[in-house]
Amino acid sequence: MKQKLSIVKIGGNLIEDVEGCKRVLDLFSKLDGNKILVHGGGKKATELANQLGVESKMVNGRRITNAEALEIALMVYGGLFSKKIVAKLQALGTDAIGMSGADADAIRAHKRPKKNVDFGFVGDVDLVNTYGIFKLLQAGFTPIFCALTHDGKGQMLNTNADTIAAELAIAMSEQFETTLYYCFEKKGVLQDIEDDNSVIHHINSKDYDELLAYGIIADGMLPKMHNCFYALRNQVGKVCIGNTEMLEANNTDYTTLTL
Amino acid sequence: MKQKLSIVKIGGNLIEDVEGCKRVLDLFSKLDGNKILVHGGGKKATELANQLGVESKMVNGRRITNAEALEIALMVYGGLFSKKIVAKLQALGTDAIGMSGADADAIRAHKRPKKNVDFGFVGDVDLVNTYGIFKLLQAGFTPIFCALTHDGKGQMLNTNADTIAAELAIAMSEQFETTLYYCFEKKGVLQDIEDDNSVIHHINSKDYDELLAYGIIADGMLPKMHNCFYALRNQVGKVCIGNTEMLEANNTDYTTLTL
Repeated sequence: MKQKLSIVKIGGNLIEDVEGCKRVLDLFSKLDGNKILVHGGGKKATELANQLGVESKMVNGRRITNAEALEIALMVYGGLFSKKIVAKLQALGTDAIGMSGADADAIRAHKRPKKNVDFGFVGDVDLVNTYGIFKLLQAGFTPIFCALTHDGKGQMLNTNADTIAAELAIAMSEQFETTLYYCFEKKGVLQDIEDDNSVIHHINSKDYDELLAYGIIADGMLPKMHNCFYALRNQVGKVCIGNTEMLEANNTDYTTLTL
Repeated sequence: MKQKLSIVKIGGNLIEDVEGCKRVLDLFSKLDGNKILVHGGGKKATELANQLGVESKMVNGRRITNAEALEIALMVYGGLFSKKIVAKLQALGTDAIGMSGADADAIRAHKRPKKNVDFGFVGDVDLVNTYGIFKLLQAGFTPIFCALTHDGKGQMLNTNADTIAAELAIAMSEQFETTLYYCFEKKGVLQDIEDDNSVIHHINSKDYDELLAYGIIADGMLPKMHNCFYALRNQVGKVCIGNTEMLEANNTDYTTLTL
């Protein structure tokens, strides 16, 4: 029987909120079995860019990463947030190691080719080094990934944290019974965007098509759901979307997605 | 017989110099056996502090670390430099993992008590988790340490990189035949500070006392040599001081220190 693995992605906004960060790390540290955390960057990178006079360009909700923006990503995601999270998890008894895709050669990517838009130092994932990550898990460590990859030729790259979580889950599913958790500010996918208690508790691919057709899934949820079903179609057993409390053992008030 | 371990400390200035960094990482990657790199921070932290309007206070050559300065240290040492070095080492075939003292709970420290000077978030090392580091080495990883520790209660701390290198060497010497290399800009300890070719090739504790008495060892070399003999007196077999070329297999033109 496969061992269980939980991969939890938390947003950058959550990390920046002191109480929110404390709560999510507390719940994460209590999860049984093998686990991996993936964290986003939040507003801090944009703030720092503004302070340093580096322009933050966005196209279709994705950041354009020039050389200065990459340095900021290395500093904020790979340094500031990663180390703060690791120190807090260590205090909670979780033997965390803060990682980018370069550490342990965990995630290789290639610089996204220029087509209509030059995204700069943005990486599209090629390969997850499951053996390297497996060795860390086997040794009792809990990898904490930030939104950075490398190209194997010495260049760091910026990669969306939701994508990193999905790619890790897909790759690790060969060896582990993997559940992918996306933590965000809502309780789950909502039937009525105005009503926080209208959580749709289960969505399969058929429901997904209908929800899309009826416009229930729209805007910011579109890329999230796309990632979820991409993971499900590639052997990830279960994907869950909800707020921090989703990680609480007895809570069932969130959205579970299956094929 | 004990396995060999090389611990190499490189200065921040070396990292900031593109060619110098390339050379030292190339030589480091070619070192046989178990190895650990420790890197300093260089001028970048001070530069960034200036850009952000954070005052960089120094007392006796040691940085005062207030909350803003700690964030900068996390960003520059733990993020920018660490990830750049790791990506470059991966390209050279060394399976590096960038670490602070919090990662793998590797190095615990306590906030230096206020006496005459309040150093702020500066950590004095209490404990090196040799078992955690051993597990990483055994799994084939090469730890890359920056000048950061943690207190085990969730607080990151800033700790001098020379000190980190010495404490790592001391702790690891129980299990490994450890050589500690301090790479800096000179070829070694010089008989005549004006003459780069006046390297003293071997110094033991008796020589050390004489060199101190004659003022040959002075200024910036004093804390360096203090660290070296501190390590030697605590079971580290050999300490070497020299420039990058010291790591070249056939070079002997550097200073070796023994008890």
